[in-house]
Amino acid sequence: MSTPFLSEDQLAREVELIERVERSFDRADNARLKQIMQALVRHLHGFVREVRLTEQEWNTAMQFLTDCGRTTTDKRQEFILLSDVLGISMQVISVNNEAYRDATEATVFGPFFVQGAPLIGHGGDMAFGAPGEPCWVVGRVSDTDGTPVQGARIDVWEADEDGLYDVQYNDARTSGRAHLFTDHNGEYRFWALTPTPYPIPDDGPVGRMLSATGRSPLRASHLHFMVSASSYRTLVTHIFVRGDQIGWADSVFGVKETLIKDFTRHPAGTPTPDGRELGQQTWTDVRFDIVLAPASA
Amino acid sequence: MSTPFLSEDQLAREVELIERVERSFDRADNARLKQIMQALVRHLHGFVREVRLTEQEWNTAMQFLTDCGRTTTDKRQEFILLSDVLGISMQVISVNNEAYRDATEATVFGPFFVQGAPLIGHGGDMAFGAPGEPCWVVGRVSDTDGTPVQGARIDVWEADEDGLYDVQYNDARTSGRAHLFTDHNGEYRFWALTPTPYPIPDDGPVGRMLSATGRSPLRASHLHFMVSASSYRTLVTHIFVRGDQIGWADSVFGVKETLIKDFTRHPAGTPTPDGRELGQQTWTDVRFDIVLAPASA
Repeated sequence: MSTPFLSEDQLAREVELIERVERSFDRADNARLKQIMQALVRHLHGFVREVRLTEQEWNTAMQFLTDCGRTTTDKRQEFILLSDVLGISMQVISVNNEAYRDATEATVFGPFFVQGAPLIGHGGDMAFGAPGEPCWVVGRVSDTDGTPVQGARIDVWEADEDGLYDVQYNDARTSGRAHLFTDHNGEYRFWALTPTPYPIPDDGPVGRMLSATGRSPLRASHLHFMVSASSYRTLVTHIFVRGDQIGWADSVFGVKETLIKDFTRHPAGTPTPDGRELGQQTWTDVRFDIVLAPASA
Repeated sequence: MSTPFLSEDQLAREVELIERVERSFDRADNARLKQIMQALVRHLHGFVREVRLTEQEWNTAMQFLTDCGRTTTDKRQEFILLSDVLGISMQVISVNNEAYRDATEATVFGPFFVQGAPLIGHGGDMAFGAPGEPCWVVGRVSDTDGTPVQGARIDVWEADEDGLYDVQYNDARTSGRAHLFTDHNGEYRFWALTPTPYPIPDDGPVGRMLSATGRSPLRASHLHFMVSASSYRTLVTHIFVRGDQIGWADSVFGVKETLIKDFTRHPAGTPTPDGRELGQQTWTDVRFDIVLAPASA
């Protein structure tokens, strides 16, 4: 730890305090809770000691947490947003979805998934009227031995071209979300919208912190996937658009190299794979092959 | 760090993420804010990785912070309470009041100090009618060379025998708090109340955490001091009662060996040092000599 030079007396005081706080949890019945609290104590004290946090800075931190509490409502979760922009949410995903051979990487779940999105058939349109450039998405779901996974459920959801999910509209429309199943070859295909960047809610304390540290609130353009099949680990992930203006500066650190995909744009009038008539609209296509880890991984 | 065995791929993913989050703060104009945020990221990710925090545990943590936010009002500060019971408040005091020769140790400030407490003379009574056993407090304020500090301001405050500070009463009384000044020998003397233990507010999420981990919400019996004099470092501290039932289990970790004092109890009828008539009441006395560090320490 890069603490500055401390006298022997001072060092002893700081270390003795940490040990005393750790010991206060020794009698916890729940061994896991005890482990978590003692580790939390060590890491938080390590932070305070390393930066030599001043009392004024501690006051600022208390006010920041208080402001996050005031901003949090049934519809706005500032603490999750804080976890997101510190990469904590992504790290939790990472430690709970360990690398397994070539299984597709997971990324953050986000707050916009809704249970019970409509079923679409092969080649169906998950946009349901949400505005944006049409995007043809195809791929194959397999296990890590390359065997196709038939009947895997794929949930997909995304923001429209204005950066809004349906739950952010002023009405009760369902759009930009659906679920479908892989065919007997493990393959799937559907129409979506070409993803575009949008900001996380930045009118609260977390947004002010981002602004104070020169960070953008924008999320890299992405399309959400959740893929589940019996005896496989459920995969929660996104695909990202190669060349997107935000890229690795994604405000919640969801981007992974393996999840950045080529979205190919086609001029208006180019025939579509399924003969859909798009008139004077451009459209894109993208391929996302998905590899599921076993449930035991 | 005691992380479990990880594959090379998994280790690389976790470390790469931390580095990416740290780099996101590289462009912060404020160098101190950048240092704090980057250190916070390293320590929080270290915690998540060490305990392999599950998604359910992360959800519980988000709900806990949300509950702390809901519990916090103008009169109740659950985040400060959380900082207190994790020993963070005490560690902040520790790093900001470094050991200096034999200067008296600092401890937590607490939420019950009030500006503008009444002045009392030498031998005055700071209880102002608050119920409790009278306690005669004497001492001398000096610098680390033993030179008395004349005219040092001493603020004292404490809970009554029911564990309540005046600000917790249902009326606007001022009691159990005062300020006085040292005489030309650096000495002071006043009447207070023998301190008794009391619980921190434990009807919120922090209290539930203490209960779930087998910890007591009680604070060790104490009398608050704040001592200030020009060109000396302001000292915020307590004295504790040797033999107190709580002792080192103090819920906010304020106890220091050097701050535990002998409170001697005298039978009812024992003459008092200043001739005060206490009738059938027992009383105690205690000595607290205070050594101030220079402001530059």
